[in-house]
Amino acid sequence: MSCRSHVQLLRLINQFGPLSRAELIRLSGLSKGAVSMVTADLLAHGLIETRDTVHGGGRPSIRLGIAADSAFFVGISLADRPVMVLGDLHGTILDRHDIDLPDRVEDIGPHVRRLIARVAPEGSIHAQRLRGIGLAVSGLVDEGGGICVRSTLTGWENAPLGPLITQACGLPAYVENDANALTVAQYRFGPMREASSFSLVSVGQGIGCGHMFGGELFRGFRGGAGEIAHATAEPGGLPCLCGKTGCLDTVASLSAISHLATRAGLPGDLEQLEQLAAQGNLGAVELLHRAGSALGLMIAQMVQIMDPQHVLVVRQGGELTGLFGRALRQAAEGNILPQLAPRPEIITGDVMADSWAFGAASVAADRSLFREF
Amino acid sequence: MSCRSHVQLLRLINQFGPLSRAELIRLSGLSKGAVSMVTADLLAHGLIETRDTVHGGGRPSIRLGIAADSAFFVGISLADRPVMVLGDLHGTILDRHDIDLPDRVEDIGPHVRRLIARVAPEGSIHAQRLRGIGLAVSGLVDEGGGICVRSTLTGWENAPLGPLITQACGLPAYVENDANALTVAQYRFGPMREASSFSLVSVGQGIGCGHMFGGELFRGFRGGAGEIAHATAEPGGLPCLCGKTGCLDTVASLSAISHLATRAGLPGDLEQLEQLAAQGNLGAVELLHRAGSALGLMIAQMVQIMDPQHVLVVRQGGELTGLFGRALRQAAEGNILPQLAPRPEIITGDVMADSWAFGAASVAADRSLFREF
Repeated sequence: MSCRSHVQLLRLINQFGPLSRAELIRLSGLSKGAVSMVTADLLAHGLIETRDTVHGGGRPSIRLGIAADSAFFVGISLADRPVMVLGDLHGTILDRHDIDLPDRVEDIGPHVRRLIARVAPEGSIHAQRLRGIGLAVSGLVDEGGGICVRSTLTGWENAPLGPLITQACGLPAYVENDANALTVAQYRFGPMREASSFSLVSVGQGIGCGHMFGGELFRGFRGGAGEIAHATAEPGGLPCLCGKTGCLDTVASLSAISHLATRAGLPGDLEQLEQLAAQGNLGAVELLHRAGSALGLMIAQMVQIMDPQHVLVVRQGGELTGLFGRALRQAAEGNILPQLAPRPEIITGDVMADSWAFGAASVAADRSLFREF
Repeated sequence: MSCRSHVQLLRLINQFGPLSRAELIRLSGLSKGAVSMVTADLLAHGLIETRDTVHGGGRPSIRLGIAADSAFFVGISLADRPVMVLGDLHGTILDRHDIDLPDRVEDIGPHVRRLIARVAPEGSIHAQRLRGIGLAVSGLVDEGGGICVRSTLTGWENAPLGPLITQACGLPAYVENDANALTVAQYRFGPMREASSFSLVSVGQGIGCGHMFGGELFRGFRGGAGEIAHATAEPGGLPCLCGKTGCLDTVASLSAISHLATRAGLPGDLEQLEQLAAQGNLGAVELLHRAGSALGLMIAQMVQIMDPQHVLVVRQGGELTGLFGRALRQAAEGNILPQLAPRPEIITGDVMADSWAFGAASVAADRSLFREF
């Protein structure tokens, strides 16, 4: 998919689809002839399919949509509990497995080949149409070279995961930072499909952050953009494993909340803390307020510094609807320049389990179909 | 200058020049034939000129440099003390004037035409080779349409300055936010010529900030990126004219320092405060420490959020060498993730008087010669 017009139309159909050829002409700025030719080509390759017929003022027009089963992608999350998923082009997870990882980086290629045989056995349609493999790792990556530069979780340094897997599996393999992978998933297959510029903040055991600007990940100069987990939220605050004190991770991550709660004789689970807070338990109120405020203030700083269109705050397995979410929103909105109009929307949402692995599959779909190369 | 190769070579010569044709071939990746043709064309247009001859291993080669007087630019700063400068293609200011502004936006066109006649009288070489006019305004701009969206300083809202001036003067006129204009000047004609990704922070009566990433200004979604002046530096701190409290502008700007110093019975001038601090005056120490620490922490947040290659902190009329600068550097470096390697360099420097107007001229040079359109 190296042709600019092919990628452009496929992106539009994925973003706003299904679309008629007339709508594609209007949205793309391409000529009628070019749109006819390119859509015929995409249809021939099976990447799009005809959907319903729309009867309007003029001639009835046929709408074109992405064909879900035209391409499949494997996504692997190298988190503390590694997971592998198989996804299709509608962003549906078709299969999932908890997996283990090899002890030695050098064995990752054959290891992944064996894993893939579980979701795409030889001869199956999944295997025939498998277009790529994505890996999401926490830490710094060189996404161009497919290299995991440094991951404290796995202890790997300068591990050429992409090339090793490509060599063993005969498929393109892409490596991406986990927060960036989640950002790509929200953009290609999630609620941010129609936005082109947003920052994502994920609240989990740690805090993650990715930026999408103009349809491209904004990585910063060293790939370190979005490292808000270790931005200082409370100067002179709690010690962090990075060596600093007062990092956002020490006060607003789920593991920090759990740790602080347990130390205060409260339950470490967020839902239980929210319940206690709703019943007026001041210890729980204080703790959730502190966490939400710290995260909200950091989001406000991000808005002042980068001016994203939206900020999407997600949590795996539950929305941020309670006091944590209210304090977050209050602190974010109260610390953004009042005159900034229209103000960026702070959107909260939850992401499904296996979202990191799905993010990895989205990266494979994004890189192999939705960009020129 | 609409051809990609022309712009590419001109950018390289401006950035690293003077350069030989062999060096241009290596740096651009263009063929020998293309470089010969394009440099011949740039020489014929007078934009570049031959410089010295370098004798190396092979044939002696002639180096090509930007011709200073091949194009001139007018830059106008609409600050509290408006200034107009005339600049050349080496980034030299040839002339400057304090100017006044018309009361009504509608009169800006003829007004600027009269002003320009002072630095580029009809028939002069400056007039013949005047390529564009830049305007730097504080506040939000729509740079594509040449519109000053909102400037509290002049009170103008949705003022189509660019089109009005272009119509009256018959020259392209470009409107840019003042901090962005200063950022462009540092990149095209200043110390950041060889860096492509940096954030600039200017310390003056207010705090300004612009981001250059990959050779392009990073503006955010609404053009509001870099509004760190109104990011919260001290939660629950001093009231700010924007309506919030604790904005960076209320503690680290020169006007805030002056205000706080006077209120404490100290001199309002930064140099005098630095002297007092050096003599051990604890009031001065406290004040400068507070200002520098607040700015340094904000710079650290910016590094964690955006990961620029460098951060350039400038002050008009003097470097930040004293306690203010030390506290700034200490707070910045102490709040950046220790593992981030290589770490962004925090560079301090001073900018000349008239730097905003010069920034405006740089924007005109940048847009008319250094980019494709």
